Formats: sequence, structure tokens, C-alpha cells
Amino acid sequence: MAIFSTTYTFRFRLLSPFVAFLALLVASNCNDGVRRRSTPTRSALRGLWKNLGLSRNNSSCVQYDVKYFTQNLDHFSFTPESYLKFQQKYLINSKHWGGASTNSPIFVYTGNEGYIEWFTQNTGFMFDIAPKFKALLVFIEHRYYGESMPFGGIDVAYSNSSTQGFLSSTQALADFAILITDLKKNLSAENSPVVVFGGSYGGMLAAWFRLKYPHITIGALASSAPILYFDCITPPESFHNVVSQDFKSESENCFKVIKESWKILHKMASTHRGKTYLRRAFKLCRLGDFDNLEDWLYSAYYEAAETDYPTPANFIQNLPAYPVKHMCKAIDDPSASRNILDRLYGAANIFYNYTGNLSCFDLGGSDPHGEEGWQFQASTEMVMPMDDDPIKSMFIAYNVSYENDEKRCESQYGTKRRPHWITTEYGGHNIKRVLKRFASNIIFFNGLRDPWSSGGVLEDINESVLAIVAEKGAHHVDLRFATKDDPQWLRDVRSREISIIEKWLSEYYSNLPL
Amino acid sequence: MAIFSTTYTFRFRLLSPFVAFLALLVASNCNDGVRRRSTPTRSALRGLWKNLGLSRNNSSCVQYDVKYFTQNLDHFSFTPESYLKFQQKYLINSKHWGGASTNSPIFVYTGNEGYIEWFTQNTGFMFDIAPKFKALLVFIEHRYYGESMPFGGIDVAYSNSSTQGFLSSTQALADFAILITDLKKNLSAENSPVVVFGGSYGGMLAAWFRLKYPHITIGALASSAPILYFDCITPPESFHNVVSQDFKSESENCFKVIKESWKILHKMASTHRGKTYLRRAFKLCRLGDFDNLEDWLYSAYYEAAETDYPTPANFIQNLPAYPVKHMCKAIDDPSASRNILDRLYGAANIFYNYTGNLSCFDLGGSDPHGEEGWQFQASTEMVMPMDDDPIKSMFIAYNVSYENDEKRCESQYGTKRRPHWITTEYGGHNIKRVLKRFASNIIFFNGLRDPWSSGGVLEDINESVLAIVAEKGAHHVDLRFATKDDPQWLRDVRSREISIIEKWLSEYYSNLPL
Repeated sequence: MAIFSTTYTFRFRLLSPFVAFLALLVASNCNDGVRRRSTPTRSALRGLWKNLGLSRNNSSCVQYDVKYFTQNLDHFSFTPESYLKFQQKYLINSKHWGGASTNSPIFVYTGNEGYIEWFTQNTGFMFDIAPKFKALLVFIEHRYYGESMPFGGIDVAYSNSSTQGFLSSTQALADFAILITDLKKNLSAENSPVVVFGGSYGGMLAAWFRLKYPHITIGALASSAPILYFDCITPPESFHNVVSQDFKSESENCFKVIKESWKILHKMASTHRGKTYLRRAFKLCRLGDFDNLEDWLYSAYYEAAETDYPTPANFIQNLPAYPVKHMCKAIDDPSASRNILDRLYGAANIFYNYTGNLSCFDLGGSDPHGEEGWQFQASTEMVMPMDDDPIKSMFIAYNVSYENDEKRCESQYGTKRRPHWITTEYGGHNIKRVLKRFASNIIFFNGLRDPWSSGGVLEDINESVLAIVAEKGAHHVDLRFATKDDPQWLRDVRSREISIIEKWLSEYYSNLPL
Repeated sequence: MAIFSTTYTFRFRLLSPFVAFLALLVASNCNDGVRRRSTPTRSALRGLWKNLGLSRNNSSCVQYDVKYFTQNLDHFSFTPESYLKFQQKYLINSKHWGGASTNSPIFVYTGNEGYIEWFTQNTGFMFDIAPKFKALLVFIEHRYYGESMPFGGIDVAYSNSSTQGFLSSTQALADFAILITDLKKNLSAENSPVVVFGGSYGGMLAAWFRLKYPHITIGALASSAPILYFDCITPPESFHNVVSQDFKSESENCFKVIKESWKILHKMASTHRGKTYLRRAFKLCRLGDFDNLEDWLYSAYYEAAETDYPTPANFIQNLPAYPVKHMCKAIDDPSASRNILDRLYGAANIFYNYTGNLSCFDLGGSDPHGEEGWQFQASTEMVMPMDDDPIKSMFIAYNVSYENDEKRCESQYGTKRRPHWITTEYGGHNIKRVLKRFASNIIFFNGLRDPWSSGGVLEDINESVLAIVAEKGAHHVDLRFATKDDPQWLRDVRSREISIIEKWLSEYYSNLPL
């Protein structure tokens, strides 16, 4: 999940549109239904998978049909504008579905901030378990992302808050509710139980969907869903503390070098000569990129912590297993230059250029996952304050200020943030007390290497609202495709998730006569 | 609760603004805080209470302070318009509150379609039990009713769907959530448990509030809340069947006379002479009132059924105990004229003129309870279809057609109804199966004399989502002030409600350390 800061777009700047292009290619090859895209050859695909660092066989290929559903712009009001329509994209895979006649289940991914294909490819768990459950798979794109764009397209939709203002989590949940209800009706599958899955913001949506729409879903797997990172339930410095601890856990020196680097970067940035040096040291394509250098490095650190997966993966970037370890190795390398900037460059080069294809870094790059709308969400309701602990944070001189963000929101969108809205609408304070006697059937997975875990639910709430915590886990690692190299703890996490979902289904079927 | 038809305003036409005026007088006398209104003498009040058919002593007088809270127009979107403000009125009584230091409870009435004073005066149960629970009482007015009017007033707010479109149940629930959260913070009463109460539409809101905002309320008493009268979960003819059965239970003849009267009324309406006769027979003030005669009679029947209370009451009209029995007596009276129209007049005269003050009926009257906005709600989301069973209904020739309503909605407001929205947003289908393992702490009270009970929850769902059903009860009779003449069954209902609420509170306090 992106966090709100000027760093936001940096994660994409070097990958250029390649990942987005790749995503479409992979998806298209496996489609077996409507609205097929042009298809690359199978050998080309194998090469792409290889580049992605994934090892897939054909049987678990990401396959789906692409469909569209007509939604109202606004579900909660009845103004003339509320009746404006847009097309919401969803992907569907019925290969293993047992069908409506057997009330076989429907597994729905509650899409988050980006192209739905991106999340679909990174939620292999659903494909992996579909045969066992004879489940229909549905991946719904979040409004205002990807193709699910109101007002005819992004240019108008994102042009100002009069059009973009209908981008909100509550509208998105209602979209899901309406689409799922209609889909079940069309499939004559009214009695098929729905389980929702989501990771990161999608995980929050999955959990909130179970809380708000229990009549539509029987349970939710909310993976790495920081539903407590609002309204200061979680101390604002927690996110940076986890990132910092990840790096510190690899080496004390790594942590120290990064922590001290900000002062050096500031100092060098104060002279023209220093800037020229920095440009060369970090192989920036343009001198203008310099202004974004600190944000670019910050993103590399926190996103490496998020995606510190035990196997190679290409979620945000194409990375080796345990990227934080690799980055710290570059910083600590005894054979490397003694110059601290060269060492930072080495770490950044691992994060942004693990394949070694780039000769220089373009910090004014693109948004291959289509996440731009998150800026608006962070400027309105998704207010997750960040701060730094002077001892524990390695970002202490890199300042993210609530006040600065607030000003930026107002100047960029003309919106005023509603920092208490998420907890008012969905809860969060005293969650154990509140949900102990209320909710049921939610799994909160968190990996403690993931900085977002600091805002996650880390303890069981009652006998069916359960926390699964993996000490070595990263951001929704459980949702990734299983690989032969997965460590045992990850296999155990997934086994437990599967057995919990089995229990939900079994209880549902036993209650079906009601 | 009003139902959507052209009959809507008829319940008010004869009472003129007297009830509204009276309501304000009564409220004002008991205020002991801010924004006091001019105060009538105590002897004048005694007279007013007597006219209302109520016997009240000073200790249970309806007392409150009037306050206002600033709300955003739209909670679910972030357009510039969403930030427009309006003042939401609420009434508060802290006379018996144990205070924040003891975490004493807060009882909140979730206001429905009308002036909040109207519901406050008809929810004496909350005043009756406040001392026992040391509870703070809060009655929140629903947006777009009473004084809680966006856009500076009703003239603009109701002028078209661009302004009125923000009148919706979801926005209202969010208003409640925000107001309660803010109020608790201001009172430093964050740990005081909130129990919500509501009758009719307010009862639906109370139940939905517990379902959607369990982090804000620990339980809901949803009285006469027809949450299943949507999307054909309840057969559309059910409402009229109950009204008809109420009249039939008094006498078979009463039912038959009413059932046959529609044909006679139609026939007479086809000639000028017939119209003149009807005007005279029903003592209509103006010949023009004739066009509304059928609706006026229809309203008298169904509203008498709704308010078939065991003691005199003035909720919709000033009525004796068991008004349906009185109306049937008028129809069956062996000493009355043999003319069927005279007998219908006798019944209508009981409903609309029990005090005998009116010399003629003005069918173009006013809206003393401020319910006009319900028309818009029924034209958008509150779609509760009505139909007639040819055998069981006494309204068989009085036709309420979904298609006609649909056309009227579109022509009046330019809105298209969303008949599946309520069940999509709040559920309702298979409610037992859905809520069995999910919800907790809701009481659904229904009186089977009340036609709305047909859309109520009449069976326990789990050990804490409970149905209390009173065979002889009418529309939210349990919420009314206790009187010395209350039958035992009504005392038992209230005792049970009190003991259930006690249990919720006790559980809450035992979980407070969590």
C-alpha cells in the first residue's frame, strides 16, 4: 500500500510502463472468455514469467474472463448526479467452480488501489485453492482505478474533486455488494456462499465488507490490513519503526548508515557542486531528478520492508528473496567504496534495478499499477499519520508532517481531510471489546516484517475473528502463489487459513436450511 | 410510519397545526436548559395533557435541552458540496445521568421522519427507565426533518432532487454515528455505553445502526421496525391483510362494509349528484376535498390499526383506547342510519374528530408532524410495495399500484427508485441464517395488531437478537409512557426489554477492561 507523501510515485519511476504492459500480456494469454486481448505466444510468456522471478506451470496460470458491470456513481444519495453510470471491471474464473446447483462457493477479491490485474496476479492463493473448494473466482476492480473510471475516463474523473469526490471506501464497498448480489442472481447462485479476500487496502476492504455486509459474505481473509492505523489508535511512529527494525535486524551498521545519510544528503543538496555529485553518485538520468532523491530512497527502504518476501517476487519491483538483506549487504559490503553515497546507491540499485537493465534512474517516471487515485483517498478519508521516533527510526531527519500533508491536500484537491471518519464509520478503537460479542469469521493475517503490521489486528478477538501472525512474514505474503521454495511457516499459515475457511463453509452449509 | 401513496398527508388534514403547536408547548415547559421557549402556565399544560388523553404527572414530564450539531451534507463522498454544513437538532436530558465518571449509559433515540419533539413525546419509555439506569437521554432529529434542514430551510432543501438527494437512511445513520461520537468525547464519556431506541422507521434505523455501527452502540431496541418489508421478502399484500384482520377481528360485518364501500364510493363519484351527496355525508368543508375522500378513509383505517393502543393516546390522532373497536362499533351500530355512508362517516369521525371539535373536515390540511420528506424517501430507497389479497383485504377495490407509484416518483422528483438497495445495504433476505452467527444485542418488538408487524422480525435469531411479539400490541406501543391502565401483557413486554438491556450493560461493563 502506498502511503501519502510526495514520495508516492517514486516506486514506479524506474520500472516505466513495463510492468503494466506485462500484466496485460500475462492476463490475456490465460483468458478463456469474453473481451480477449491480443495474445502473446506461450514461449514469450514463459520469458515474461521468468523476468518476473516467478516459476509458474500452466495449470496454475492466472486465467480469467474480463467483464464489466454498470454501477451508479453514488449509492448513498439520490441527486441526479448519483444516477450517472460507470462500468466497473471484474475478472472471473469459473474453471473449478462446482456450480450453482451444488451451492459451490464464490471467492471474491475486493480490489484496491490499482489495476485489478495487478492484484489478481499477486493473489495466487485464490487460484491455488480454487480446485479444492470448487470455487468461482471473482476479482473486482475498485472504482476510479484501472478501467473502472467514472466520467468517461481518468482525465475528467481525476480533474477536480467535483468528479473525483465519489472515490471513497464506502462507495467501493457498496459497489462490491451490488455487483456480487447481481452476479449471484444472474448465476442463479443465491445460495452460494461468498468469501472475500483482500490484501493491504484491499484487506481493509475485505474486513470492513464482512463487518458491514455480513448478508453478502460469510467471511473475510483480510491480509495485512492496517485497519488500526487511523485516528492514532496505532502510534504514528510505528510504521517507520518497523521499517527501521527490519534494516536493523540485518545489521546495526545498515540502520546507522541510513539514519545518518539524511544529514549528508541535506548538506550536499545545499551546493550546486553537491547536487552534481549526487546526480552522478545515484546515476540520475536528469539533474532535475535530484529534488526527488530523498523520497526515492525513502520509498526504496519502506517498500523493500513491505515486500521482504522469502522468495523472489515482482509485486512492487522485481526483487530477490529477502530484499532488505540484500540492500543491507550492499551497504555493509566491506569490498565496496567507503563513500556512504556509493553504498546507498548500491542498496537503491538492488531495489530499483535488480535485473540490471537500467543504465540511469528516471525519477520522473510513470505509474504502472495505476495507483494515482490513492493520493486523493489519502487527502480525504485514508488519513494514516506517520511520524518518527528519534531513537528507533532511521528516517528521523526525513520528515513526514501531518500539517504539510494537510496543506498539500487542500491545495491539490481543495478537500479537507476527515481524520476521524474511518474509525467512526468502521470502528477501530477498543476493537477487542467491540467485536468480541459482535463480529464473526474474519482472519487478520499479518507478517511482522511488514511495516503495515503495526496497524493490524494481532490478537484473536473471539473464536472466529482470528489473528494469524507470522514473525518473518511481509505484506500479504500469504496471498501469493505457493512456490516450491516457500518456508514451512508460510505453508503453515496458508494451511491454517484454508482450514478456517473450510470451517466457515461447513457452518454455512449446515445452516442453509434456515 | 407513513406509507407511500397519495394518502400520505391525509392523516394531518383535520388536526390542523394544533398538535404541532401543542407539542412545542409541552416541550417548552419542561426544558431546563438552553434555548428555552416561552412557557405556558402549569394549569394550561394540565389542560393540554387532558386534551391529549394522557394522564401525566410532573415527575415523568418530557424534559430536555435543545441543542444543535454541525454536520457535513454528505459523509460518503468528498465533492465540494459534501462539505456543506447544516445544523442537526437534538434533545438531551441529563436529569438522571450518573455521569461520565461512572461510565453511566447513554440512551439515544434514532429519530425518524418528522419533528424530533413528536417522537420524543411518544417515547416515554426512555424517560420512564432513565432513573433506573441513570441514563443520559438523547433524541436526535433525522436530517431533512424538523429544524434539521440543509440548504438553509425546507424551501430550498425540498425544491428538487439536487438538494433533497442527500436525504437517505445511510446518511442519517452516519449523522447519528458522528454526533454520538462527538457528544461522548465532549462529555469525556468515551466509555459510557450507548443503547439506541427507535420506533417504526426509527426502529429500522436503530436496528441498522447496531448492525452497521456496533462500535458506537452496544445494543438496539428496534420497535415495530419492518426491516423485512422490502424487496418482496414480505408478501406485498401483508400490510393490508393485517389492517383488514384487525377490523375483521372486531366484527365480520365491519370488515364487509368497508370492503364493499369502495365500489359504492366509486359509483357515487361518477355523478355530480353523487359527489354532492358524498360531500354532505362526510361533512367535507369543500367540494374539492372530495377527490381525496378515498385516500382519507384509507388512512383512517390503516392508521387506526397502527395505533390500536390499549389506552387513549395521541400519536397520529387524538384517539380512545382500541380505536379500531370504536370505529367498528360506529359501523355496526344498530341504532345508526342504515346508509353505509353514514356508518363510514361515523368511523371516520372517531378517527379524525374524537374530541368532537371539528364541524367539517378539511382534506387539504397541513403536516403537523413534519413528515413531508418521507415522500422523497419512498421515491428513492424506502420501497415497500403494497398489494391486496382478493379475499383477505378490505381494500381490494382501493388500488395502490407499484407502477403508479413509480411514475409518480419520476414525475415528482425525477428520481428512479432503487427497490433492491435497502436489502443490499442492510440485508433482510435469509436474515436468520445471516445473523445467526453475526449480530448480537437487538430486540425486535412487534405488536401483531400493527400492520407493520408483517414486515418485522418475529422470531429469535440467536441468543441475543431477540423477537418480542405481543399479540394485542400495536405500533411501537412498548415505547410509550407507562400508564396505570396498561394491560399486563404490555407491562411484561417492557419488563423483559428492561431486563435484556440490563444484561447488555452488565456484559459491557464486564468487558470494559478489554
